[in-house]
Amino acid sequence: MTFTFLGPAGTFCEQALLSLPGTEAEERVPAVSVDSALAAVRAGEVDAAMVPIENSVEGGVSATLDAVAHGDTLQIVAEALIPITFELLVRPGIERLEDIKIISTHGHAWAQCRGWVEANIPGVSFLPASSTAAGAMGLLDPECTYDAALCSPLVSQNTALRVLRQGVEDHEGAVTRFILVTRPGAMPDPTGSDKTTAVVTMTDDHPGGLRELLDQFATRGVNLTRIESRPTGGGLGQYFFSLDLEGHLNEPRVADALAGAHRMSADVRFLGSYPSATPLASKVPAHASSEAYRAAGDWISRLRRVGRGED
Amino acid sequence: MTFTFLGPAGTFCEQALLSLPGTEAEERVPAVSVDSALAAVRAGEVDAAMVPIENSVEGGVSATLDAVAHGDTLQIVAEALIPITFELLVRPGIERLEDIKIISTHGHAWAQCRGWVEANIPGVSFLPASSTAAGAMGLLDPECTYDAALCSPLVSQNTALRVLRQGVEDHEGAVTRFILVTRPGAMPDPTGSDKTTAVVTMTDDHPGGLRELLDQFATRGVNLTRIESRPTGGGLGQYFFSLDLEGHLNEPRVADALAGAHRMSADVRFLGSYPSATPLASKVPAHASSEAYRAAGDWISRLRRVGRGED
Amino acid sequence: MTFTFLGPAGTFCEQALLSLPGTEAEERVPAVSVDSALAAVRAGEVDAAMVPIENSVEGGVSATLDAVAHGDTLQIVAEALIPITFELLVRPGIERLEDIKIISTHGHAWAQCRGWVEANIPGVSFLPASSTAAGAMGLLDPECTYDAALCSPLVSQNTALRVLRQGVEDHEGAVTRFILVTRPGAMPDPTGSDKTTAVVTMTDDHPGGLRELLDQFATRGVNLTRIESRPTGGGLGQYFFSLDLEGHLNEPRVADALAGAHRMSADVRFLGSYPSATPLASKVPAHASSEAYRAAGDWISRLRRVGRGED
Amino acid sequence: MTFTFLGPAGTFCEQALLSLPGTEAEERVPAVSVDSALAAVRAGEVDAAMVPIENSVEGGVSATLDAVAHGDTLQIVAEALIPITFELLVRPGIERLEDIKIISTHGHAWAQCRGWVEANIPGVSFLPASSTAAGAMGLLDPECTYDAALCSPLVSQNTALRVLRQGVEDHEGAVTRFILVTRPGAMPDPTGSDKTTAVVTMTDDHPGGLRELLDQFATRGVNLTRIESRPTGGGLGQYFFSLDLEGHLNEPRVADALAGAHRMSADVRFLGSYPSATPLASKVPAHASSEAYRAAGDWISRLRRVGRGED
Repeated sequence: MTFTFLGPAGTFCEQALLSLPGTEAEERVPAVSVDSALAAVRAGEVDAAMVPIENSVEGGVSATLDAVAHGDTLQIVAEALIPITFELLVRPGIERLEDIKIISTHGHAWAQCRGWVEANIPGVSFLPASSTAAGAMGLLDPECTYDAALCSPLVSQNTALRVLRQGVEDHEGAVTRFILVTRPGAMPDPTGSDKTTAVVTMTDDHPGGLRELLDQFATRGVNLTRIESRPTGGGLGQYFFSLDLEGHLNEPRVADALAGAHRMSADVRFLGSYPSATPLASKVPAHASSEAYRAAGDWISRLRRVGRGED
Repeated sequence: MTFTFLGPAGTFCEQALLSLPGTEAEERVPAVSVDSALAAVRAGEVDAAMVPIENSVEGGVSATLDAVAHGDTLQIVAEALIPITFELLVRPGIERLEDIKIISTHGHAWAQCRGWVEANIPGVSFLPASSTAAGAMGLLDPECTYDAALCSPLVSQNTALRVLRQGVEDHEGAVTRFILVTRPGAMPDPTGSDKTTAVVTMTDDHPGGLRELLDQFATRGVNLTRIESRPTGGGLGQYFFSLDLEGHLNEPRVADALAGAHRMSADVRFLGSYPSATPLASKVPAHASSEAYRAAGDWISRLRRVGRGED
Repeated sequence: MTFTFLGPAGTFCEQALLSLPGTEAEERVPAVSVDSALAAVRAGEVDAAMVPIENSVEGGVSATLDAVAHGDTLQIVAEALIPITFELLVRPGIERLEDIKIISTHGHAWAQCRGWVEANIPGVSFLPASSTAAGAMGLLDPECTYDAALCSPLVSQNTALRVLRQGVEDHEGAVTRFILVTRPGAMPDPTGSDKTTAVVTMTDDHPGGLRELLDQFATRGVNLTRIESRPTGGGLGQYFFSLDLEGHLNEPRVADALAGAHRMSADVRFLGSYPSATPLASKVPAHASSEAYRAAGDWISRLRRVGRGED
Repeated sequence: MTFTFLGPAGTFCEQALLSLPGTEAEERVPAVSVDSALAAVRAGEVDAAMVPIENSVEGGVSATLDAVAHGDTLQIVAEALIPITFELLVRPGIERLEDIKIISTHGHAWAQCRGWVEANIPGVSFLPASSTAAGAMGLLDPECTYDAALCSPLVSQNTALRVLRQGVEDHEGAVTRFILVTRPGAMPDPTGSDKTTAVVTMTDDHPGGLRELLDQFATRGVNLTRIESRPTGGGLGQYFFSLDLEGHLNEPRVADALAGAHRMSADVRFLGSYPSATPLASKVPAHASSEAYRAAGDWISRLRRVGRGED
């Protein structure tokens, strides 16, 4: 199998990919953007792409949420959670914090370390980079116009770049969730602790539409772990919902809830059922168990048989 | 076919039975109570029983609601609505209202005419009778101890009893709804304007249980036309619900809602789908149409096929 | 104070009245019906009436539910739960069950003992009486035309009538709930375990109306302990709801929920807050506590003060 | 009054500020970020800040959503909707699209024009700029290292920079919504077409929590026009909700719904009621009108007065 990820080498995204068993030995092609990574999957150039979907501090990754919601359907087959911690790397010659005048990194990294930077290197300037790793690798260039970079520990592990400070993120314990995306095909088997991701666009944007959608899940005892509204592009106030729920398409309550959402909405895009990276806490209520579904289905079948005079 | 009904001849219940096409030519056996009428059906002594289920003034008929909820399962195959109007019949010798000292009739009839009686025959006494027709027929007995009876117009049409006043009911326009009950078997075909009756006993009597039950119907776009709570007999505060809904078991939204109720409750008893006696007003929402169900079912099937690697 | 109750002396209803402290020493006037008992209260002829509202086997008492829902407003100030057990009393000369040919009692009592009677005195006839006590007292009449009566143990305690069997009710443990009704006036203070009774008539009978009504209570954390639909008299399918809820009008969550119901409905009739006869089981959720209400009210007031430029 | 906005001069944000009556004559200080703009308001250095909150294509502006949700409370007093259209400006010497090798602009602008750029200038590179206006103004620098910029039409109106193409955005009709933020104080009066913005953090992240929150608004007939989940920073799966609703704090239904949310949640932050930039479409249901609130409030007051024996 061949993989792509948000490159270059050394990003948190590569780290997420390497956290999955068996990926280290496979071909890994860096991509310059979420869009190009997913385009490579859609075009069949690679088998799978690892991309970020949400961060516990920054929230949803719009580029990913939108890219998987539109275009040829894709499928999520795995997720990985990566603790986000930043190192401050410096170019040769920089010894102390007060020597740093310009820091280059990706906007997301800057957002997550800005408090520390303002407190510790007051007056420093920010130069946007296309990725955290790109900003760091630029320090190796003798003509580098900036002094430092903020990036994943993966970079210093693989280069001679000097680490001036570790753990410079503002929010200790931040985590980014990444998803592994393939073309539609065989789905991971249920493990008993699975997530399902879907995108729902309501038929019309009437008051109470979201509540009606949530009712479809609640009445089937299906718990949502994430819900984000994203604009459809049709104008302010027109949203679709990206959501994760607990359970696997093969479980009847999940299929029943998704079918309910399908009937209520202009479009539901199923994006896959896959093992949760962490054990799921919530219990399936008795009325939503597969056994309850089987019993109710049998009951209806029997009633209909009797009603046709067959029993 | 043989039928039973709440007798004797001349009751509103016989009138309801005769309102169904083809019943006049069939054998009709009067029963002394709802329980005995339904027992005769259960025992196979008759094919069907006509019994009252609700009155637009008096409300639900507890005897019927309870009798169909317990014991061997029965099936409702038709309903009939009978306008309830009462005549005041008198025994020979009574010429004027002021001559009437005692009126005998069934307690339900008394309840529906009491206002008129108190206004027009002040001071009169009430003697309970086992049925309106029985009270009226007693007037033919030379030793009758009362002076008048309140009953259906059917009685005076078939006897020589004198009608002193017509339309003595307090609520003009009152209607009683009767149901025709058989043993379980072939169900009437959907007509596009059908009702379904069911009895639901909740698993436990937790706060909000009724709301959760209603959610099962509402999320499938199924409209309830009647809901009554009845005690389970297990103690105050423990109820089951008797309900009518719009639609037929053969419609997927109805089967889906009943299956949802089945999963949530200790017991659901299906009592039949049958043509509504009056055209149903409410529209099926687009998301609950059979077409929407078919499309959603196809979608789930396709997703699962793809997920098994078959597509 | 003067009281009325469903008479004659010796009914379960008198027993209920006597179960309230201090009533034994007061004047007690029997009434012949729920309507006449309540009319006496409305007319100021008595101060309070004790009437049955529901039975754990037979369900709601329609006469009471309807009478308190219409006419001049009344107020429930207390409730009493009376275990219902029946004795079989016989007239002098009757020694054995097989001597009994005719039993007289009130229809409700008959309904609650019919199973025992059919099993133990097969073939016996039923003669309706206006009350259980009236049926029993008739046995003292030398010209009594029936042999036995079914009634409350209170009768044999106060007469010389012979008890042939005790505990002849079909459902062991049956309970009737009675309410003490006055003209509107000072309300019992909250005790921490109170009930509130109200009658709600929806504005229009649209699908989902009941669910919307229940939402008004659920969103305020108010638990309903009883809900019954009763016809408005306007035609089949037109109902009002009689309901009991946990809590007292003086609690903000109860007032808030009732105000919500008031806004949604054509009419809400408040029938009183009074101590529950049994301790209430369910907990008030934190979000519905009086403290949460106070804090939220203060917050809104402060926001509005700031918004007016006053803070 | 003094204002700040996302600078430099010529941004869409300045355009939004200038769209409000009377702002042109006032002092306008550009800010380098949403955070610094809001910090200037909080510190009292300026009276108000105009910042973007959502775009009809890109969605919510996380920096703004998070900044107004935390720190000292701020107040939204106005909103402005600005159509987003981009011009392609070039440095002197560039005559044709094929001469362009590098384009500099803000990441958001790049995201909104990328389709057009890839179709029309294949192979071009993207150089992130700190703002669209900054990227454009850089073209005036003789040593500019890039060839073109994507920015608001406001820039070309005020500079000699050459416009090579207009309307290069991918989504025609895109709109950004900006909000004018002040320190808490006097609130705009209700206009009959108002919005209210609030931030709600649930007490605990239990399944169904969002649905319960929506119930608080729905039962008061309050329509939400925007809802976005944002991470609290406490870990994946822990969200707060940023929401806009139709109506003004001075309307009882809005105050009642916010009070309900306050009781249910760990924290509700009120961010202001202000005139909607466009007329609001949805009708207030009859049960949520101020008149219905007044009537229900009067009814409760009267019941309580009677209950205290005062009436």
